[in-house]
Amino acid sequence: MIERTAILHVPKSNFAYAQDQDNLHIILKAKHNDLKKVTLFYSDPFDFNDGLNFKTVIMEKSGETSLFDYYKITIAPKDKRATYFFEIEGTSGDKVFYTEKGFFEIDKKTTLLKGGYGFTFPWMNPIDIQNTPSWIKDTVWYQIFPERFANGDPSLNRKDVLPWGQVDPTPNNFFGGDLQGIIDHLDHLQDLGVNGLYLCPIFKAYTNHKYDTIDYFEIDPDFGDKAKFKELVDKCHKLGIKVMLDAVFNHIGYRSPIWQDVVKNQQNSKYKDWFFIKKFPVETMDAGGVENSVKELSYYTFAYTGYMPKFNTANPAAKEYLLSVASYWVEEFNIDAWRLDVANEVDHEFWRAFRKTVNQKQPTYILGEIWTEANAWLKGDQFDGVMNYFLTSAINDFIAKQTISAAEFQNRVVDAMHTYPDNVQVGMFNCLDSHDTARLLTTCGENIDKFLLAYSFLFTCTGAPSIYYGDEIGMNGENDPWCRKCMEWVQGKWNQKIFKYFKNLIQVRQQHPVLGSYGTFAFVSIDVKTNVVVYKKYDENNEYIIYMNNSEKVNSVKGSFKNQIDLISNVKEDGTEISLEPFGIKIFKTK
Amino acid sequence: MIERTAILHVPKSNFAYAQDQDNLHIILKAKHNDLKKVTLFYSDPFDFNDGLNFKTVIMEKSGETSLFDYYKITIAPKDKRATYFFEIEGTSGDKVFYTEKGFFEIDKKTTLLKGGYGFTFPWMNPIDIQNTPSWIKDTVWYQIFPERFANGDPSLNRKDVLPWGQVDPTPNNFFGGDLQGIIDHLDHLQDLGVNGLYLCPIFKAYTNHKYDTIDYFEIDPDFGDKAKFKELVDKCHKLGIKVMLDAVFNHIGYRSPIWQDVVKNQQNSKYKDWFFIKKFPVETMDAGGVENSVKELSYYTFAYTGYMPKFNTANPAAKEYLLSVASYWVEEFNIDAWRLDVANEVDHEFWRAFRKTVNQKQPTYILGEIWTEANAWLKGDQFDGVMNYFLTSAINDFIAKQTISAAEFQNRVVDAMHTYPDNVQVGMFNCLDSHDTARLLTTCGENIDKFLLAYSFLFTCTGAPSIYYGDEIGMNGENDPWCRKCMEWVQGKWNQKIFKYFKNLIQVRQQHPVLGSYGTFAFVSIDVKTNVVVYKKYDENNEYIIYMNNSEKVNSVKGSFKNQIDLISNVKEDGTEISLEPFGIKIFKTK
Repeated sequence: MIERTAILHVPKSNFAYAQDQDNLHIILKAKHNDLKKVTLFYSDPFDFNDGLNFKTVIMEKSGETSLFDYYKITIAPKDKRATYFFEIEGTSGDKVFYTEKGFFEIDKKTTLLKGGYGFTFPWMNPIDIQNTPSWIKDTVWYQIFPERFANGDPSLNRKDVLPWGQVDPTPNNFFGGDLQGIIDHLDHLQDLGVNGLYLCPIFKAYTNHKYDTIDYFEIDPDFGDKAKFKELVDKCHKLGIKVMLDAVFNHIGYRSPIWQDVVKNQQNSKYKDWFFIKKFPVETMDAGGVENSVKELSYYTFAYTGYMPKFNTANPAAKEYLLSVASYWVEEFNIDAWRLDVANEVDHEFWRAFRKTVNQKQPTYILGEIWTEANAWLKGDQFDGVMNYFLTSAINDFIAKQTISAAEFQNRVVDAMHTYPDNVQVGMFNCLDSHDTARLLTTCGENIDKFLLAYSFLFTCTGAPSIYYGDEIGMNGENDPWCRKCMEWVQGKWNQKIFKYFKNLIQVRQQHPVLGSYGTFAFVSIDVKTNVVVYKKYDENNEYIIYMNNSEKVNSVKGSFKNQIDLISNVKEDGTEISLEPFGIKIFKTK
Repeated sequence: MIERTAILHVPKSNFAYAQDQDNLHIILKAKHNDLKKVTLFYSDPFDFNDGLNFKTVIMEKSGETSLFDYYKITIAPKDKRATYFFEIEGTSGDKVFYTEKGFFEIDKKTTLLKGGYGFTFPWMNPIDIQNTPSWIKDTVWYQIFPERFANGDPSLNRKDVLPWGQVDPTPNNFFGGDLQGIIDHLDHLQDLGVNGLYLCPIFKAYTNHKYDTIDYFEIDPDFGDKAKFKELVDKCHKLGIKVMLDAVFNHIGYRSPIWQDVVKNQQNSKYKDWFFIKKFPVETMDAGGVENSVKELSYYTFAYTGYMPKFNTANPAAKEYLLSVASYWVEEFNIDAWRLDVANEVDHEFWRAFRKTVNQKQPTYILGEIWTEANAWLKGDQFDGVMNYFLTSAINDFIAKQTISAAEFQNRVVDAMHTYPDNVQVGMFNCLDSHDTARLLTTCGENIDKFLLAYSFLFTCTGAPSIYYGDEIGMNGENDPWCRKCMEWVQGKWNQKIFKYFKNLIQVRQQHPVLGSYGTFAFVSIDVKTNVVVYKKYDENNEYIIYMNNSEKVNSVKGSFKNQIDLISNVKEDGTEISLEPFGIKIFKTK
């Protein structure tokens, strides 16, 4: 018998959305191995002809986990609207209809065909459809923590700047990284092959991480000035590199004139309503404690960080101010993208206005920092993508940490793929580490093969992959402050194997778009004993089969490998078996 | 073993929402009778103390259906944010944790308590919380189809006006109903006890239903003029009656100057982008066919109704025009509410702007005409409620049509109650019939007791009930045109039993707010053999037990009825058994 309680479809959700102006995607979830066949009945809701003119189409299984199977279909309703329900056949041949009004036995078919029971997609309004900038599908990001990338202009050095890389990083020390340093090394980015530059905050702030903004309209003087930033953006654009800045709009820095006005004037400050203040007076730094984690402050903050007072982004003046920041850097400096810090704690209304503001002339790519399920921000009205933590953690747990089985890896990748619409998946930011985590090589226990395997898998996923500065030359480091070490510029200290591998990996993704965001992902087989995972990426005209050996042992896979060239090693296979090195991967174009 | 595939929680949805600025509602769905206990683990996401400081609370069952049980809890996170997961105990004592990252065995507790696995409610931003006008909780609507309510000013009569009620209604005939007629009969509304007036369209249009607008800034000359409408609104307000108008913004009428400009000037019309035109020339009425159902028109329409060309509400000029209509009637005439016709086919962006526009000074009640699941419009940014068709159909099927069992009735009512957040439930528009359906008395096969039972149940539900004009005096009628008969003003022809019952029912609801939108609904027992349904409405200080006999037989229920007065009949019960007449209902205040 079909497990009816497992059957799930939600109208107008990640299970029913307009992929583009013509196509609707419909998804159904069921208990794993419970169904033989799922048929979609669909009709225009007004196409009556002695009952509605239903068409039927068999849904394909788009993924399976230990618990669930997903079924998916694309339909193209001529008049932009659809009513639909499902005919579900269990493995033992029992059938039932699943509609918005519940389950109906198979003898109720005539009733259902008359209409009034289906789920509805009322109208595919173009303006409601996710309109992520198309270039994101071709983007490979490179993330820079500016204070630690390169010191290109020593004249900007603060008094306390330390010799580059000669001292351990701490949460509070400075090494003089700046914009000139980035400009000086754009050839490195070009050599590597990335075409997107994501900069952690560069606006005037107090700390070395600059997440405590003092002035959103100024470049931090440690980093340079506006002319230098303009030069950076222009040079990036000439090299075909997009530029993404970090918008810290959830909170401001304690030392900003805006918050200082509140500190000084308290309830008389003109900025008092820009924040969520519980009672006056607000604490001052002199009175102690606001630097650290304080749970009983008189105002709301980011986390319990007293020096990061939380904005009331619904206050009209605060909102207008922050939106003017957003448009200023887009319009005056032609930045291509905004990454939104602590995006999930800012109100939805604000982000809707933000999207309109930065997309006035052309679409800006909008990336939310959200570590948990984020559909509430990904309905076309707010963000283009979020940091794809579901994917990150699946890869890190399976490959880097070796804490989950191949089956659990499949579960989590398949669930992640079905959590957001396809037109959002292409906008996801796929990273394996960052300034907020340990570096991947360290998570891999310094095992370079694991490290490269993890990145290889990432690069065959839909969504834009990101490389955290230094990963490409084998830098390591535990979590902050160790993941924020100075970039190593002595090439003799680079891991050349890693660097070459990255250059090749990027090139392979760029030369084979279907391996990246242009293709559909599907698992082919997993072997929980050997940890060999086989999957494919494909579209109508292309197919790639990828063999991944997440094991410290050599493993082999049988099959027909006629004249097939592994895109990673460029080695030709021509037999009935391939051998996979420990943590090795092979990618074949099979169509 | 727990059926894990049935367990469902969705973050930031109707299963996890800010009910108000302080309280979060968290809901979990599980297979019916599968669980013994559900415990919520919750913590501030940043309240670390060697792991997060989780608290636990046992969730209560808030409803059950044949397939599912719902569990619900309210928490009040001090710092407006929460991370949480569930400990689930099956009936056989087996336990498992359910988190955003899937299920974890019970020995993983220490890992989970460290954080990183929970669902998240990131921050309860006040501006994102549903802010439905508070008066809706006390509102009883009265719906009028203006052409057929009363002819108060014969001087407005068209030439083809027919004698009131002397001829059968047709889709095209006219009887002269007008605004003066409504004004003349406000005493009837007052006598009845309603305090909300919902008028089907009154703007200048061609048909008798006026859903094919000619001019949104004019009162239809058949109905009166702006001065008369102002008089109506003012008089209503003096009587404490709110006024809701019908906004037909999905499409315009063929005969409007705007569409006629397109018809005349075709691709040179300044209005051409106000619509979704597939190709020029657009068909004209002369060329035939646009009046009727035409499936191959050169432009998109409502349904296949050629004389209702669909607006492109994303076009800036069209949007501005329609929003100016929305604010005009709110600001100049002080209307209290807008009912939005075919609301689900208009783009979400438009409705978000609409909400901002009409809520500038004070909240306007916004009701969407949506017959299917409508969560996509009920997230605080668009509507306050929709026509509660899930409830309508459950009541009609159970009581009026007698086509479903008491068990199925419970299923559908419980599912409906969990489909939308509580702060949306109070904004629902609960009707049993309308100008678009057969009249309830007719659906009841003219059985008055069934009819009154259905309305009685409706009036004890959360959400604002609506009475379709004439129902209160026993008018009948099949679907359009028969449900649009002229209101009967010869009081001798009224069914006085029905009228008195309605007056009493309205009074009971108003005198006992917890019976209405101030109380929580729960089934106490259902008897599938006798069709006796017992349910309660309650809050912290009050409790009402309602006994409903949906049967043509007398049924009795045993219990302790000490000095209890049935609020409907005012008859005292004082024994261990009550008797319920066929299709009878008794309501007792037990606390």
